[in-house]
Parts: sequence; structure tokens; C-alpha cells
Amino acid sequence: MNQDRKVFTMTTWQAYLAANQDRYLAELLDFLRFPSISSLPEHAGDVAAAGEWVAARMKVAGIEHVEVMPTDGHPVVYGDWLHAPGKPTVLLYGHFDTQPVDPEEKWTRPPFEPTLVDDKVYARGASDDKGNMLVPILAVEALLATEGGLPLNVKFCFEGQEEIGSPTLRPFMEAHKELLACELVVSADGGQFSETEPEVTLATRGICALQVDVTGPSRDLHSGSFGGTVQNPIHALATILAGLHDADGHIAVEGFYDSVHVLTDEEKAKIAAIPLDPAEYQEQLGVSGLFGEAGYSVHEQAWARPTLEVNGIWGGFTAAGMKTVLPSEAHAKITCRLVANQNPREMAELVAAQIHRLTPPGVTVATTIMANAAMPYLMAADHPGNVAAHAVLEELYGRPPYYTRTGGSVPIYELFLSALDAYTVTFGFGLEDENIHSPNEYWRLSSFKKGQQGYCMLLHELAKT
Amino acid sequence: MNQDRKVFTMTTWQAYLAANQDRYLAELLDFLRFPSISSLPEHAGDVAAAGEWVAARMKVAGIEHVEVMPTDGHPVVYGDWLHAPGKPTVLLYGHFDTQPVDPEEKWTRPPFEPTLVDDKVYARGASDDKGNMLVPILAVEALLATEGGLPLNVKFCFEGQEEIGSPTLRPFMEAHKELLACELVVSADGGQFSETEPEVTLATRGICALQVDVTGPSRDLHSGSFGGTVQNPIHALATILAGLHDADGHIAVEGFYDSVHVLTDEEKAKIAAIPLDPAEYQEQLGVSGLFGEAGYSVHEQAWARPTLEVNGIWGGFTAAGMKTVLPSEAHAKITCRLVANQNPREMAELVAAQIHRLTPPGVTVATTIMANAAMPYLMAADHPGNVAAHAVLEELYGRPPYYTRTGGSVPIYELFLSALDAYTVTFGFGLEDENIHSPNEYWRLSSFKKGQQGYCMLLHELAKT
Repeated sequence: MNQDRKVFTMTTWQAYLAANQDRYLAELLDFLRFPSISSLPEHAGDVAAAGEWVAARMKVAGIEHVEVMPTDGHPVVYGDWLHAPGKPTVLLYGHFDTQPVDPEEKWTRPPFEPTLVDDKVYARGASDDKGNMLVPILAVEALLATEGGLPLNVKFCFEGQEEIGSPTLRPFMEAHKELLACELVVSADGGQFSETEPEVTLATRGICALQVDVTGPSRDLHSGSFGGTVQNPIHALATILAGLHDADGHIAVEGFYDSVHVLTDEEKAKIAAIPLDPAEYQEQLGVSGLFGEAGYSVHEQAWARPTLEVNGIWGGFTAAGMKTVLPSEAHAKITCRLVANQNPREMAELVAAQIHRLTPPGVTVATTIMANAAMPYLMAADHPGNVAAHAVLEELYGRPPYYTRTGGSVPIYELFLSALDAYTVTFGFGLEDENIHSPNEYWRLSSFKKGQQGYCMLLHELAKT
Repeated sequence: MNQDRKVFTMTTWQAYLAANQDRYLAELLDFLRFPSISSLPEHAGDVAAAGEWVAARMKVAGIEHVEVMPTDGHPVVYGDWLHAPGKPTVLLYGHFDTQPVDPEEKWTRPPFEPTLVDDKVYARGASDDKGNMLVPILAVEALLATEGGLPLNVKFCFEGQEEIGSPTLRPFMEAHKELLACELVVSADGGQFSETEPEVTLATRGICALQVDVTGPSRDLHSGSFGGTVQNPIHALATILAGLHDADGHIAVEGFYDSVHVLTDEEKAKIAAIPLDPAEYQEQLGVSGLFGEAGYSVHEQAWARPTLEVNGIWGGFTAAGMKTVLPSEAHAKITCRLVANQNPREMAELVAAQIHRLTPPGVTVATTIMANAAMPYLMAADHPGNVAAHAVLEELYGRPPYYTRTGGSVPIYELFLSALDAYTVTFGFGLEDENIHSPNEYWRLSSFKKGQQGYCMLLHELAKT
């Protein structure tokens, strides 16, 4: 780490940031050199080393009580600055672990030897999430160096296991509720709608998962000798799966929509304001046409309506050629994306019940509700955290942000909500084309700078709430 | 081969058979020692050697023009005896190749070292079909030795590739139509209903086969980000497959039943006469209940009505755990069993057309009609060949045979019909419990003797037609 911190007094954080960009960039490159792949046991030491680097860098910034704290998996790095009595406390979150690099042969440059090309830094973890998580540390340093303190109380919680689903984070948080207590979480693990269009993310979908196992005859039968006299498990499974939607794309599961948060006109208007070119979207996905629940726009379908998708199906003979078998079994895997206020366990049970109702005679069906589950998440647009983020982003980009949602699941939001009773504002600067989770991940240096400014502004803005 | 043929004069074939059983049995064991597995290239020499053994044994019997004839695959053994002017000509058929022996570890005794236990001979090919195909040679020998000739003209056509689907038999037969010309084929490759109940088989089902390939997005999509906005290929496939049957088990393909031979009251009565205990059948198959086309009995469903079975299905993520993928593709393999007078190609085209009609929006579906096809086969119960077989079996068993059908396909019947314009009477003495195609195949010596008598009687009976 570059320790030659400039110590002369700055009048503004803006001037401090401008004066320190070369050092900050050198530090970002240092941080990116750790091959901190959390999914690979042989890289556990690198994840830990990256955590130690983060802790050291936080101390340099002036953050107090910095500590690398063990969990049952990879460590958490904690720190705080709590000298703003009467002001809110925010918890800044990010992660210093990365995805694996395979297929490594598709990388143009070594993934852990960061390279600068055209004001972009290429490295695994550049955008997701090392670059983004370094930003709030640098912003806090700038504020402390130029203003003698922070406008509100700040805690830091950086983890090293986000890319493997944060398996030991919940017990860690349950065990350290006091330490991590806050009014709001700000997550540096996220992005913006485009390089020129900011966004505030209001919601993510939850998830529940089931496996369906259909059993017919006790062994595979010769379809000539026995075909026509017993129910074929594949036919039964097809009948069940076909019955889970109607022709208009509605989910045909009794009770499934009962608890669904119905979009208000205001929410629908916010979603409608977000540009989407259906033809371009269709071409991007390579489909012959779009298809979704009738009565909803594409963004509503992807973000604000629940889905039921069969993720896999198998049964009988699947190799080349033909085998005249009437199989003993057929199987399918199903996940539902859920929206506020659907409970994953309850929804999985409703789907299972419907599957049993749809089962034709002559087969036995078992449904197994899988452990994979996440609560849906919805944060009010007028939550003070969102109001603050909206104001900062509008000033930073020169235009108001979109109120977007995420079709996928971000379990950490629900974890913060349930463990700390705090909502999460995602305030990150990744962009969709930056190859996160893929070869040749990169991050824009313009985002690096914009992020530092944004965090300085956001902490001031949140101090007003 | 045991050459010490007894040459003293017999007055009857019955006496001749009785006097020669020890020799015949020794010869059967010799024949069973050839590991003539047609599917394994390393056994091609054994198949050929078995053919040479058959040819030599035919000559010993007094059969003329015996010849091992090459095909593009394993050889055919031909022979004839054509000294009955004004009498019909029958072609006796069987095969000297066998199934493989795997899993070999499940055999109690080495599969090609025949062993006698409790009046059964254990060996691969004992029942299917070496034992059964040796029988007509022995019967002809007995008739020639005791009656100085045969009551009608007889040709022999024994093949060495039945267990691999007789791939080169059609061109061979097309090339030797004159040589093989006959009024009737009698196949020694078959069996009886039970040890005490004989049968005459009237029909086999045909077959056609298709593969269905459903394509949605050009790549697997994240079901969180995109689920709900595009058609899931597995959903589309389930909808298609579910639409191919109605709830009563009828095939819901336009035009599919138009050409189906409607069972006459007489045919239905013949089928109804054949015993079947539904509870026992259900237990044998290990199903929770039977299910088939409404309005038809189990035997009608299995033998005399067409079916459409999905033999295999696959798509998306099928390993352990969960992957939230909206897959790019889903696939299924389908075969239909066909009854007289359905044409396999036409039926496959009707199914393909229905699949395209059932395809929901947002996916592309390709249907591929596979080469696997066989014509359905139906021989009139009052065909002179069946009348003769019926009379002989009734005398041999002391009770009239059932008129059965076979749910599977026996392409050789249609091959004889199209190439030689001759129907086939199956006259064999295998029984269902003899583990053909499985470990520990065996054959009853009682069937060996009954077969020899039966063939002597049948040739006499056919001579009257």
C-alpha cells in the first residue's frame, strides 16, 4: 500500500479527492492483485490477505476500531467512526472476495494483474466489487482529512464470501447485532442504469425452489409390450408442468397471487418511466418473440411480478438415437421468483399442493421444497435513504435517477432487514457491460471518481435525515 | 456334431423322434456353445461358425442346396427340399445369432457352456432362438427318414443378425426373391402363451419415431433477470407434450385414428378370451394403478390400439441442487406404436404437424422424423396358415390356442410380406419366464420335444392347404 499520504490541509473534499487520484488508483491496483476467490479453498489465504489489506487501508483513512473478525467462513472486516452524536448511523457494506476466473483462457490479460486500457481497469473484481467497495473508504478519508470529522456516524462491514452466497454471514450478524446496529445500510455492491443515467433500486425478487419427482412403473418398461396400459411418468410430468401456467402466462397455482403486492399507479408510473426497446431486448435475448404475463409491461414482468420457471427437466432415454422405453421416472426442478409480500416457504407449499392436484392417475408424485429461498424485498421510494440517494445522484448525473427494481434475488437486503431492522440503499457504480462474473471484467475509472464524489455527497445528505 | 445317425428304418416320425432324442439334445448343446453374439464385432467369426454348423446339420438332415450365403453383414443359411409338385411351398425361418451376455456377473453358469438342470437347458440363445430354430431341421429329418419325403415344399432361411435388427436382410431378400419365393413363412422365433396354453399370434404393432427440439433464447438466461419476459422452452415442451393426449388417454393428434383398423366384434371376442388379471398385471409392473385409452381392455390397449409415448425428455439444469436458469433448449423423444393400417411415415408427419399446432408463442420447434420405423402387421385368423397352426396346437396341447397379438414390433413380418408377398405364422415354443435377453436364459426340454412333434404335424397340416 502506498503510505505517502498527503497531509497538508485541504479546504474541501473535492480538492482532496482531485489531489489524491494517482495514489488512489495505485491502491486500487494493489487491491485487485489479491486472487481472493471465495469459492476455491486454495484461495482462502488470498481472501484473508485481501481482508487484511482492507483493514490496513481503513486505518490509513482514519477509520477507528478496525478489526478483521472471524466467521465460520471467510472473515468480515469491521470499522467505525462514531463521533456524530444525535446524527444517524449508516452501515457501509461491500465485499472483497471475487468470482472465479474460469474460463481463464478467454481472458486477454491475466485476471489478477490489473491493466489500464482507455481509462478502464481490467481485472477480476474490478467492478464486482473491489473497485466499488474501496470507494467509501476513500470518500471517508477525504471527509475526515478536510472536515475534521464525518457529518454522521458510519460503520463498515465488508465481507469475503458474497460470491458464494454469504453462508456464514447471518449467524455473524445475529451474534453482532449491537456492533452493527444502524438506521440504514448503504451497499457499494451495485451499479447504475447506464453511464449517463443513474438509478435507485427499490426492490428485488425473492425465490423459492422445489423438485418434482414422478414415479410410475417400478422399472423401465418396453414401450411396445406395455405402452398404452400404464401412465407414462413423462406424460404425467408434462401435464403437471403445463398446468402450472395458463395460456396468458399467469401462474395457475391456487392462492399464489393472494399475498402479492399489487403495483400502485405511482409504482407503475415509475417503472414505465424507465426506457426499454422491446425489439432490442428481444434481439439481445435471441428469442423469436417476447412472452410474459398478459397485462404487464416487460419491466413489470421481470421486476414486479412473480414467476414460476422450470429450470430443468429429465426422464427416460436422452442419448442419441432411440430407445423404446416407457420410463419409471421423470423429474423437474422449479424455482419461483417472488415479490413483496410473498413468503417463500408458503409459496413453495402452494406450488407443491397444486402439483399434487394436477397429478393424473397412475403415478406417484413427490415434491421436495429445497433450501434455496430468499425473501422478496421492497423499499419505499420515499424512504429517507432513497430520497437522499435520489438527490445526490440527480446532482451527480445532471438528471434524476430511475426507480428500478431487480428481477433476481439479493439475500443480503433481507438479511440486513431481519437482523438489523435496516433497509439498504444500493449506491454503487458498476455498469452492465463490465463483464462481471465473466472473462475480461473491467471497471471505468470515471466511475471510480464519480463514486468518491457520490459517497462524500451521500454522507452529507444522509446526515440531514 | 454327432454324426452317428441311426439309419434303420422307422415306420413313423414319432418313433424316429423318440429314438433320436439323446442325439438331438447333444447337438443342441453343441449349437449353444457358439458365442454367436451378432452385436459384437469380435464375435463375427463365432456367428459365421454357428452358420456353418447349421448348414452342416441341415445337410445331415437331408436338406438340399444348403448354402451359407453372404450378406453385407452376418451370413444367411439357405437350404430347400422341393420335391412336392402341386403342393405349397413354406419358408422356415429362425436365427442363429444371440443377444450379448452382459451383465455377465449375473449368470449362475457360463452363458456359452450349456448346462442341464431339472429338464431345462441353461445357455444364452437356448430359447431365443437356437433351440427353437434347430427344431424344424430335426422335424424335417424325421419326416425324410421315415416317410421318404416331405408332404410339401420347404425352404429354409436362417439368419445371423436378428438381434441387431436384421440390417442387411432386406437387400438380401430383395436380391433373392426367386430363391426365397413361398406361399407362407413359418417363423421358429417365438413362443406360446404358457406351458399349457398355446397361441396363434395375429398381429404386431408398427412404430414411428420423432425427436422434438424446442429453442427459446439464444443462450441460457438468468431466471431472475429475465424470467417472466420470455417463453421458457421447458414450459413450451410441457404444453406440447401434455396436448398430445386427452385426459381419457386418447391421442390428440388430428387424423391419427383415421386409418386405424377398428376392431370387429369377432376380434374383440378373441382378445377378450385371453386371460388377464388386472391386479396381478398392475403388481407385476409396480404401478399404483393402470391407465390407458378409455373404452378398451388392457390387452386391446397393449396390442390393438396405437400409442404415443414420450421415451425421453431433457432440458436445462439436471444435476444435484439448484441453478436458476431459464434454459435455451428443451428436447423430447417420442415413439408411436401403430396398428393396421397406419403408415409409419404418415403417422409421424401427423404427430409433427400437431406438435407445431400446439407450440406456444416465443419458441421455435423442430421435429425430426427418425429412421426407426416399422409397419404394423395383421394376419387374418382364417388365413390357411393360421388355421393349420391352430389345428396342430389344439391337438398338441389338448386345448385350442388363444389368438394373441404382440404390442412390440417384429419388422421381419413386414419384410417377408413386402419382399415375398407372404404372411408369417409364428410357430415357436419359447415361454415368457425363460430370461431371453437377460442373464440365465434357459429353455425347457419339454418344449424341445413338443416343437419337433409340432413341426412334423404342421408340415402335414399345411400340405392340405
